[in-house]
Amino acid sequence: MFFASDNAGPVHPQIMERLSRANEGHAMPYGKDAVMDEVRDRLRAVFEAPEAAVYLVATGTAANALALACYTQPWQTVFCAAVSHIEQDECNAPEFYSGGAKLTLIDTDNKMTPEALQAALDARLDGNVHAAQAGPVSITQVTERGSVHTLDELRALTAVAKSRALPVHLDGARFANAQAALGCSAAEMTWKSGVDVVSFGGTKNGCMGVEAVVFFDPEKAWEFELRRKRAAHLFSKHRYLSAQMAGYLENDLWLDMAHRANANAARLAGGLRHKGATLLHKPDANMIFASFPRATHQRLHAAGARYYAMGDVQTGPAEGPLPARLVCDWSMTDAGIDQFLSHF
Amino acid sequence: MFFASDNAGPVHPQIMERLSRANEGHAMPYGKDAVMDEVRDRLRAVFEAPEAAVYLVATGTAANALALACYTQPWQTVFCAAVSHIEQDECNAPEFYSGGAKLTLIDTDNKMTPEALQAALDARLDGNVHAAQAGPVSITQVTERGSVHTLDELRALTAVAKSRALPVHLDGARFANAQAALGCSAAEMTWKSGVDVVSFGGTKNGCMGVEAVVFFDPEKAWEFELRRKRAAHLFSKHRYLSAQMAGYLENDLWLDMAHRANANAARLAGGLRHKGATLLHKPDANMIFASFPRATHQRLHAAGARYYAMGDVQTGPAEGPLPARLVCDWSMTDAGIDQFLSHF
Amino acid sequence: MFFASDNAGPVHPQIMERLSRANEGHAMPYGKDAVMDEVRDRLRAVFEAPEAAVYLVATGTAANALALACYTQPWQTVFCAAVSHIEQDECNAPEFYSGGAKLTLIDTDNKMTPEALQAALDARLDGNVHAAQAGPVSITQVTERGSVHTLDELRALTAVAKSRALPVHLDGARFANAQAALGCSAAEMTWKSGVDVVSFGGTKNGCMGVEAVVFFDPEKAWEFELRRKRAAHLFSKHRYLSAQMAGYLENDLWLDMAHRANANAARLAGGLRHKGATLLHKPDANMIFASFPRATHQRLHAAGARYYAMGDVQTGPAEGPLPARLVCDWSMTDAGIDQFLSHF
Amino acid sequence: MFFASDNAGPVHPQIMERLSRANEGHAMPYGKDAVMDEVRDRLRAVFEAPEAAVYLVATGTAANALALACYTQPWQTVFCAAVSHIEQDECNAPEFYSGGAKLTLIDTDNKMTPEALQAALDARLDGNVHAAQAGPVSITQVTERGSVHTLDELRALTAVAKSRALPVHLDGARFANAQAALGCSAAEMTWKSGVDVVSFGGTKNGCMGVEAVVFFDPEKAWEFELRRKRAAHLFSKHRYLSAQMAGYLENDLWLDMAHRANANAARLAGGLRHKGATLLHKPDANMIFASFPRATHQRLHAAGARYYAMGDVQTGPAEGPLPARLVCDWSMTDAGIDQFLSHF
Repeated sequence: MFFASDNAGPVHPQIMERLSRANEGHAMPYGKDAVMDEVRDRLRAVFEAPEAAVYLVATGTAANALALACYTQPWQTVFCAAVSHIEQDECNAPEFYSGGAKLTLIDTDNKMTPEALQAALDARLDGNVHAAQAGPVSITQVTERGSVHTLDELRALTAVAKSRALPVHLDGARFANAQAALGCSAAEMTWKSGVDVVSFGGTKNGCMGVEAVVFFDPEKAWEFELRRKRAAHLFSKHRYLSAQMAGYLENDLWLDMAHRANANAARLAGGLRHKGATLLHKPDANMIFASFPRATHQRLHAAGARYYAMGDVQTGPAEGPLPARLVCDWSMTDAGIDQFLSHF
Repeated sequence: MFFASDNAGPVHPQIMERLSRANEGHAMPYGKDAVMDEVRDRLRAVFEAPEAAVYLVATGTAANALALACYTQPWQTVFCAAVSHIEQDECNAPEFYSGGAKLTLIDTDNKMTPEALQAALDARLDGNVHAAQAGPVSITQVTERGSVHTLDELRALTAVAKSRALPVHLDGARFANAQAALGCSAAEMTWKSGVDVVSFGGTKNGCMGVEAVVFFDPEKAWEFELRRKRAAHLFSKHRYLSAQMAGYLENDLWLDMAHRANANAARLAGGLRHKGATLLHKPDANMIFASFPRATHQRLHAAGARYYAMGDVQTGPAEGPLPARLVCDWSMTDAGIDQFLSHF
Repeated sequence: MFFASDNAGPVHPQIMERLSRANEGHAMPYGKDAVMDEVRDRLRAVFEAPEAAVYLVATGTAANALALACYTQPWQTVFCAAVSHIEQDECNAPEFYSGGAKLTLIDTDNKMTPEALQAALDARLDGNVHAAQAGPVSITQVTERGSVHTLDELRALTAVAKSRALPVHLDGARFANAQAALGCSAAEMTWKSGVDVVSFGGTKNGCMGVEAVVFFDPEKAWEFELRRKRAAHLFSKHRYLSAQMAGYLENDLWLDMAHRANANAARLAGGLRHKGATLLHKPDANMIFASFPRATHQRLHAAGARYYAMGDVQTGPAEGPLPARLVCDWSMTDAGIDQFLSHF
Repeated sequence: MFFASDNAGPVHPQIMERLSRANEGHAMPYGKDAVMDEVRDRLRAVFEAPEAAVYLVATGTAANALALACYTQPWQTVFCAAVSHIEQDECNAPEFYSGGAKLTLIDTDNKMTPEALQAALDARLDGNVHAAQAGPVSITQVTERGSVHTLDELRALTAVAKSRALPVHLDGARFANAQAALGCSAAEMTWKSGVDVVSFGGTKNGCMGVEAVVFFDPEKAWEFELRRKRAAHLFSKHRYLSAQMAGYLENDLWLDMAHRANANAARLAGGLRHKGATLLHKPDANMIFASFPRATHQRLHAAGARYYAMGDVQTGPAEGPLPARLVCDWSMTDAGIDQFLSHF
C-alpha cells in the first residue's frame, strides 16, 4: 500500500535486463556509446522529429533546469503555474541553472489558463529595462495535481506564448501517463502543439533514473552539452543511462506501463468515489487528490499505508475531512488497491 | 585492448547483483531508503569517522563541485594543481557551483608541492579587498598523472593549508587505487592527514555511476543537502545509488578491484619498460603515461587498441616518440595486456 | 511641473558645495578618505548605533541587492510585497546578487500585512529540502505606493520574521521621508523595531547618487566589503560619495528636505482632493497615487506636466478616470504645485 | 607627494563646472537626459564610429566586467595577462558578471605576447566538452605595468584572437594616457586594430567616477542595458555621469590631462634614472615601476610621500633595492615631482 509517489516503485524487469545486457566489456564514455545511438533514433521516431537534439540526464530536476536554462536569460522570468514542480520542488534549481532568472507564478491550483498567462504577460511592458524580461513559458503535463491538458488546452497556452515570441518548455516528468490518457502521439503533444523543448520522463514510470531532454530546434545541441557537463550531469558511464532508456522505449514498454499506472489510478479513484471520498482535481492520469475523514486516514496509517496527507492525521476531529495525494505506478496490483480501499 | 579510461569498463557482478536485490517493492525516495542507512554506517566505519556526514551523487564532477562549494565563497580562489581535473576537465563546474570563485593554478605537471602552494599563498595578501580571497586547497589522489602522494606528502600539503586556516578537499576519484597503492587506511589518507572533505569515487572502479562525498565536519550536512538538491543531483530513486555503493563496499570489493587495477597497470608498465617505452610519471596506481614511437602507435591503432595518444598518430616521423595515457581497470586480463604489449 | 520621480530633481546646493570642498588635493581611495570617517560617525550617531557597519554605494538597487545578499543563501527565498521595488524595478538584481535566490511575493497593493507574511511563512515547511528555504523579509519604508508603516506596523512585521529567526531588511530609498512623516528617530524605525540592515537613501532626496547601507550587526562588515568590490560598487574616488553623504547629514539637511518634499506632497494632495480627484493610497510622505478624468490628463500633458499615468492618456473616454503617480521632492515650489493644480 | 594612484587626485575644474551646470531643474533619469545625447555623439565622433553603442558606468571594474560579460558565456574562459587588473584587482567581478567563466592567465610580467596567447589557445581543443571553451581576449592599454602596446603589437594580438573568431576587449582605464603616448586616433587604437569593445576610462584621468563602455557592434546594446540595470549600475540621476563625461571630452580636456600626466611621469622617470634608480618596465605613459634602495624609501616615507612599495620599507638592509609603483596624474606640479626626487 505505497501510494506516496511514483518515484518509489521498482524498475521494470525489461529495463533491468537491458542494463545487464549493456554491462559487457568496454564502451565509449560520455554519450558516445552505441546504445545512445539507438536511443537517439528511437526518440526521434517517437517524436517524429528526425532532426531533434536528444540527450539523457538522471533526474527530472536536471532535465527541467537544463532545458529551461537553454531558453532563459538571467534577466528574464519564466512563466509557470504557482503549483508547478519547478517552483515548488526544485529548491531554486531553475534560478541556479539560469544564472538568477525569476519565476512568475500564474495563480492556479492546477492547470495554467491561457487567460491568466495572457494577463501575466500583459502586466510586463516590453522594453522596460527595470523589470525582468519575459522569458519562456513552462507547462507541466500531467500537472502536479494529476490533470492532463487536452491538445486544445495545450495549443491555447502555446498560442499565447507564441504571440509574444516566447519559447515553450514542457515538463513531462509524467509524459507517458499524459500521452496514454490522451491517446495522441508524442508529436501532437509537443512540437505540433507549439512546444520547443520537452523533459521526457522515465524515472517515475519504471526506470531507475533517466530522463530525456528533446530539443526540436537542433541549434540548441552544443549549448546543452556544455551546460550539462558544467552542471556535472554528463555521465561517464553513459551506457547505463542509454540502456535504461532503450529498455523503456522497446516494444512501447513506456506506454504499457503508463496505461497500467493510469488504470490503477482509475480503479483507485472509482473505489474512492464509491466509498464517499471527494476527488479534488480531475484524476486524468495516475495521480489522485482525494479528501476523506481523518478517522479513515488513521485506519490507513495504522494498516501501514504510505501516501501524503495534507494535514495532521493524528490530531483533530475524527470526521474532519483531510486531503491526500495518492499516486499509482505500473507495479501496483488490483489486490493492493482493493486492500487500501478496504480500510474506508 | 581498451586503455582509454577506467570509466569505460563494466560494472562488477557483485554490484549488479546488489542492484537487482534492491529492486524489490517500494522504497522511500531521496536518500531515505534503508540501504543508504547501511552505506552511511559502512562508510563511517571505513573512514573511522562515526560522526561524518555521508552523501551519494552520481558523477565525480558533482562530488567535487558540491564538496568544494561547501567550502568556497564566491569571492575566493581554490588552490589546485594546473593539471587537476577540476581545472582541466569540468567545464567550469567548480566556478558554477561556487557562484563564481576562481581557481589558482599551482604550476606542476603532476603533484602539487608544498613549496609551490606556499608561494601561491604568499602571493595573496590577507585582507586585500581587491583580490580574490584565499579559499580551499584541492588535492587529487591518485593524481591526474597517475602518481600517489605519500602520507608525508599529503600532510606537508595540508600543513601549508592549515597554516592559513584553509580547508582541504581531496579529489578521490581514484581513492581506492591510491589506498591500495599506499597500503594505509582511509582515515590516514584523509582526516588523519588534514583532509576536511573527500570525493570518494566508485564510478571509475567498477560501479555504474556513484561517488560518495564524506564531510568529517558534520556541520556541513544540511548545506550539502540543499546544494545537492538545488543542483538537481538528489536522486528520487536513491536506492539504486545506495545499492551500488553497498555492493562496492561489501567484503572490501572496492579494494580488491583497486588492487587488481593497480596490478594490471604494474604488469603493463613492466612490459612497457621492457619494450623500451619511456614512463613519463611514476605509475603508482592504475594509470600510466608512456612515450613510444609513432610506428608502434600506428600498429596498436591498426590492431584496434583504444587509448589517448597525445599528438597525431598518423602523421609525422615513424620513429618520433609520442606520449600516451593508458588506464587499467579491475576487469582487464593478463592476456589482454600481453596482447597490447605484443604490438611493440 | 515635473512629478515623475524624486530621482529627477537637482542636487541641493549644500551638497554641491560639500563636493567642491572635497575636491582638493589627493585623498586616499576606496573608502579610506577622511570624509568617510566623518560620515561613519554621523550615521552611527543618527542611528544611535555606535558599532554599526556603515558603507556607501551609488544606487538604491546596489544598496538593496548587496544588503540582502549578505543575509540570503542562494537556496532561500526573500519575502517581500508584490509591489516592492526589489521585485518590480530591479531587473533581477536581488536574484543576481544572491546567487539565484527566489522572491516570495506577499500579495498586497501597498503595505505587507503581518497576517499575509505569516501565511506565506506557514506555507513553507521547515527542513523540506525540495523547496526554497525561508530567507530574509524585506520591507519598504516609504512603500512603493506612498504609505508609511507606523512603528507598530513595522514591529508587527518584524515580530513575524523574528518568530522564525529570519533577518529583516528595510528598503529605505525614502527613509528620510518616512522618518519625517512619523516624527520618530532613525533608531526607532530600524533596530529598535527589529530591522537588521537598512538601505538609507540619499539619491531621491537631494543627493547626486549615494545610499548608505547600515548593518546593526558589525559581523557583516567584511563580507559586505568583498561583495561590494566584487560587484564593482567600490568607488576608487570614494571621497565624492562621502562628501555627498556628509553634506546630506550636515545640520539635518536630509530631514529638512524630506519635510519639504512631504509638505509639497501634502499641498498637492489637498489640492487634488479639492479638485475632486480620488486618492488611491494614503499619501503619508512625498508620493501620491490619484485618479482623475482622462480629459484632465490631456490638459496636463498639453501643458508639459511630467508624471506617470497608468494607462493611455490620449485614447479613451474623456471622462474615464485614469490613475497617476505624482512624486514631490524638496525643490518644488508652491507656485509649481498650484500651476499643476490649475489645469484641473 | 602622492604617487600611490591616479585614482587619488582631484576632479578637474572644467568637469566640476559642468556638473554644476547640469544641476538645474529636473532631468529625465536613467540615461535619457539631454547631456547623454551629447556624450553619445561626442564619443561616436571620437571613435569615428557613428553606430557604436555608448554607455556610462561609474567604476572601471563595472566597465570591464559588464563589457566582458556581453561576450563571455559561463562555460568559457577569458584570456588575459597574469598581471591584468581583471585578474588581480577585481575580486572575481569578471567571474561574477559572466556567471562563472574562468580566466586563463597568459604568463607575463607586463604585455601579453601574441606567441603566448597563441600557445594558450593551442592548448585548448575546440569542441572538447570537458574543458572551458575559448572566450574573449582582454588586453589592457596602458598595461598594469605602465607600458603601452604599439598599434602593431595590438594588431598582432587581435589577429591571434580573430584567427579563432574570438572577440577582443580593451581595458582602457588609462585609454587617454595610451592614446597620448602613441599619438594615434581612438579608432586606430580600437576597432581599426580589431577591438570589439572598450572600457574608456575617465575616473583615473580627472573625472569623479565615470567610464564609458563603447561597443562597435550596436547589436550588444540592449543586452548591455539589461546587464547594467541588473547589476545595479544604471544611475537614476544619470545626468551627473553624463556631465562628467561631457566635461571630460569638451575641448579635448581628456587628452590634455593625459598629456600632462604622461609628461609628469616622464619628468619623474628622468629624475629617477638620473638618481640611479632602476626602471623595471618601459614607462610609456603615466605609471613607473622603479627600484631603489630601502634607505631612500625610508626617507621618502618620513617625508610623507605616498606610493606603493613592493616589500617591507622599514625592515631589511638599507642598501637592499626595493621596487615601487609611482603613478602621476594631470594635477601634479613640477615642484612636487622635484620635491619627491630631492629625497634621493
